[in-house]
Amino acid sequence: MSKIAAIIGGGVIGGGWAARFLLNGWDVRVFDPDPEAERKIGEVLDNARRSLPGLGNVALPDEGRLSFHAELAEAVSGADWIQESVPERLDLKQKVYAELEKYCDADAVIGSSTSGFKPSELQKGRGNGGQIVVAHPFNPVYLLPLAEVVTTAANSQQVIARAKEVISSIGMYPLHLKNEIDAHVADRFLEAVWREALWLVKDGIATTEEIDNAIRYGFGIRWAQMGLFDTYRVAGGEAGMKHFMAQFGPCLTSPWTKLMDVPEFTDELVDLIAGQSDAQSGHMSIREMERIRDDNLVGMMRALGANDWGTGALQNAHDKSLEGEAGLVSSIDDIADLSQPVLTQSRVVPLDWTDYNGHMTESRYLDAFAQSTDRLMAIIGCDAEYIASGGSYFTAETHIRHIDEVHAGHPIQIKTRVIMGAGKKMHLWHEMYEGDRLLATGEHMLLHVDLKTRRSAPPAAHIEANLVKLAAAHAALAAPDGLGRAIGAPR
Amino acid sequence: MSKIAAIIGGGVIGGGWAARFLLNGWDVRVFDPDPEAERKIGEVLDNARRSLPGLGNVALPDEGRLSFHAELAEAVSGADWIQESVPERLDLKQKVYAELEKYCDADAVIGSSTSGFKPSELQKGRGNGGQIVVAHPFNPVYLLPLAEVVTTAANSQQVIARAKEVISSIGMYPLHLKNEIDAHVADRFLEAVWREALWLVKDGIATTEEIDNAIRYGFGIRWAQMGLFDTYRVAGGEAGMKHFMAQFGPCLTSPWTKLMDVPEFTDELVDLIAGQSDAQSGHMSIREMERIRDDNLVGMMRALGANDWGTGALQNAHDKSLEGEAGLVSSIDDIADLSQPVLTQSRVVPLDWTDYNGHMTESRYLDAFAQSTDRLMAIIGCDAEYIASGGSYFTAETHIRHIDEVHAGHPIQIKTRVIMGAGKKMHLWHEMYEGDRLLATGEHMLLHVDLKTRRSAPPAAHIEANLVKLAAAHAALAAPDGLGRAIGAPR
Repeated sequence: MSKIAAIIGGGVIGGGWAARFLLNGWDVRVFDPDPEAERKIGEVLDNARRSLPGLGNVALPDEGRLSFHAELAEAVSGADWIQESVPERLDLKQKVYAELEKYCDADAVIGSSTSGFKPSELQKGRGNGGQIVVAHPFNPVYLLPLAEVVTTAANSQQVIARAKEVISSIGMYPLHLKNEIDAHVADRFLEAVWREALWLVKDGIATTEEIDNAIRYGFGIRWAQMGLFDTYRVAGGEAGMKHFMAQFGPCLTSPWTKLMDVPEFTDELVDLIAGQSDAQSGHMSIREMERIRDDNLVGMMRALGANDWGTGALQNAHDKSLEGEAGLVSSIDDIADLSQPVLTQSRVVPLDWTDYNGHMTESRYLDAFAQSTDRLMAIIGCDAEYIASGGSYFTAETHIRHIDEVHAGHPIQIKTRVIMGAGKKMHLWHEMYEGDRLLATGEHMLLHVDLKTRRSAPPAAHIEANLVKLAAAHAALAAPDGLGRAIGAPR
Repeated sequence: MSKIAAIIGGGVIGGGWAARFLLNGWDVRVFDPDPEAERKIGEVLDNARRSLPGLGNVALPDEGRLSFHAELAEAVSGADWIQESVPERLDLKQKVYAELEKYCDADAVIGSSTSGFKPSELQKGRGNGGQIVVAHPFNPVYLLPLAEVVTTAANSQQVIARAKEVISSIGMYPLHLKNEIDAHVADRFLEAVWREALWLVKDGIATTEEIDNAIRYGFGIRWAQMGLFDTYRVAGGEAGMKHFMAQFGPCLTSPWTKLMDVPEFTDELVDLIAGQSDAQSGHMSIREMERIRDDNLVGMMRALGANDWGTGALQNAHDKSLEGEAGLVSSIDDIADLSQPVLTQSRVVPLDWTDYNGHMTESRYLDAFAQSTDRLMAIIGCDAEYIASGGSYFTAETHIRHIDEVHAGHPIQIKTRVIMGAGKKMHLWHEMYEGDRLLATGEHMLLHVDLKTRRSAPPAAHIEANLVKLAAAHAALAAPDGLGRAIGAPR
């Protein structure tokens, strides 16, 4: 295999395919008469280069070569894969296939990005129809793995196997439909939801923003990890999928959607679905599935929290409202007793902070200490506003001692001492506790930097003054055990 | 406010509400004649205690008191909030409301978890109908923030404000519908998708598992962060929502779903939707929204990867296929030159590894070093299988020096040396590079442990032998700069 892909039509979808292939080491040749094609694909590639290479934990192969071609023949000759993403008009697509027939290699696979047409419609009248399959991706193609593969009896087993193999090799999931149907599978759901949503806006029930929130704060994030049937399997509980269907079956005739052409709710249909659901997830108990679901939801919601977006933004606002009751302050003026270490964190170990050893994983100790450093920075005046003005602290050195284990769901607190604070330097000592049990210590040397030059520079006067004040107050405390220790040094 | 919630009906939904209130510091009184109610709520509470307290970054208040009551009067008297989650039968619900009328406080809000009924149907015939609102949550109620609030003209502004305030105070999002409608908003979408999915299974297009994959590998994870309209706004590009609608409007009459009762596609409807979409997201450019979307997708997919689930599991499999080409090995036998530091990581800095300083955040240096430690462990034979048998290494101490910055999208490599390996001890030295540029060093002391006793214990003989072999080979290298240094010590 030469790993050459030809991209016919370079819009958002064609560009996404180009990026997928290119960043997975394929040479990519683009044919698109649009004079703007190179710029448009360049924009998609910028986004893809920004996000895809770091998606996994292993480096992708070296990028392939990208080239633009004015002649279709030049683009497709010798290509293993040809992806057609021209506008959604059957006559236009058929014209492209007639041309491809003349120039493409006989063993190349021709994938179509069509959202609506069936492969038999694309293959009709072509001598090489057996090379054509539907390979329908989802935007952004460079990140979302789903590609619906739809074939007909005209496609050989070899072509089908090859199509699935190539799609898998660029990190995607080929979903091979059993039979062709207008709009395949996923877009049928999108179309049903779209039609229902148009009614809701038209009838003044909710705005577009409210509808988006109804999706992303509820079933949207649930569907990001388990789909429709597994979600209902869990909802049905130990009684199983048949029980769930018996309960909700009658609603099929309720006016719960404007869209009323429904299949007859027969025992045969219930058995078919319950049987498929058992085959899909019968190896897991409902309790097990609930915990997997909750692990996934917590992980995703916390990932969105880091971007202050969606459910994560809601949670961040809720966190903010809890700080006072948790004893956390954001300003040196609110510290009741300056002579004691400052409470800089009070939380519970999240589900996504644990590892295969069943306890909080080592990098999350530093995550927690870093969040305590952030709070101490805010307390001395180095807050988001100050950082936006161009100053911040960077950590130069860290020393962590793990004293004891802690598990998900347990409460932890961090108390922080300023060992030294003067000029550009800030020397901190964090102690992490569960109740009275010391879990870990973190010793950190930070330098104040100018975020423009990325070099160390003195902090604003009020920040240094606050830091000196805290350092002086903490100087009366006994030196903590382990301060200044090196690894391997005797205790 | 006394912060007392009464839960009428304690199934999965009632139990979820009980957990939400309880873990947010409310006293919760449960009334449910089911003799199994206490056990069932206990199971939901177990799940909630496991996942909710660690969802945010700040500790929740102390749990309230949970009590079970045989008399409705006892449960609801003095309660600020009463949540009805009895089975979905109007006569049953109305019977409960008639009883509540006798015993509940006049200023209590009565929320109904009904999926299908309109609030006017619940309020009908009640003297205190103005206290009753729909407050419809989504399973798992303790994690998902959406609660649809549906009211009628019978509800005072005070009751509506109070309902939204209480729901917000327990970390949820009250979506207040403009008008009542059967099944509210979200369940109408679920019903539409359910009906379409029944057709697809019945017609043999796809199995339940394939349908679930079509959802979670594509639009499901997209909807976890932006809903229907924002997603299409981005897809439409700079041309905007009107352009998108013009393009897809005609498809409303296509056979793209079996569900064909569609609104008329008028200019008025297009203007209404485009205007609402502008109000919702017009403050962001499409490019900006694309990057927010990609940041969110990468963060969520990586969170799922940590659980080896859904899109994350697909990515992990793809990673595995890339290891060889990236020069990574999993066994000491595959190391070409034992005398040199071992390549233990080759990756690109992911989008979710950066912070407000615009560079890779400190805890992710330790995350990367920990992954390198994991690979070195696997290389000497301490792999997943060995760990499952009861032995592993725990990190006792870590020292990180940050030498230079690195940004998202840049390639990094980690090379690892065994400084000392004998008996229970493993002393490692990691160096992180971008090309030839040294970014950071990580020095780590680990102890082999027995995972049952959680105490240090000798490793299996083959593991110690491999470790000793690597340590001996690396001993010939010059001692690395910074080894054994303490924070604050002179260089």
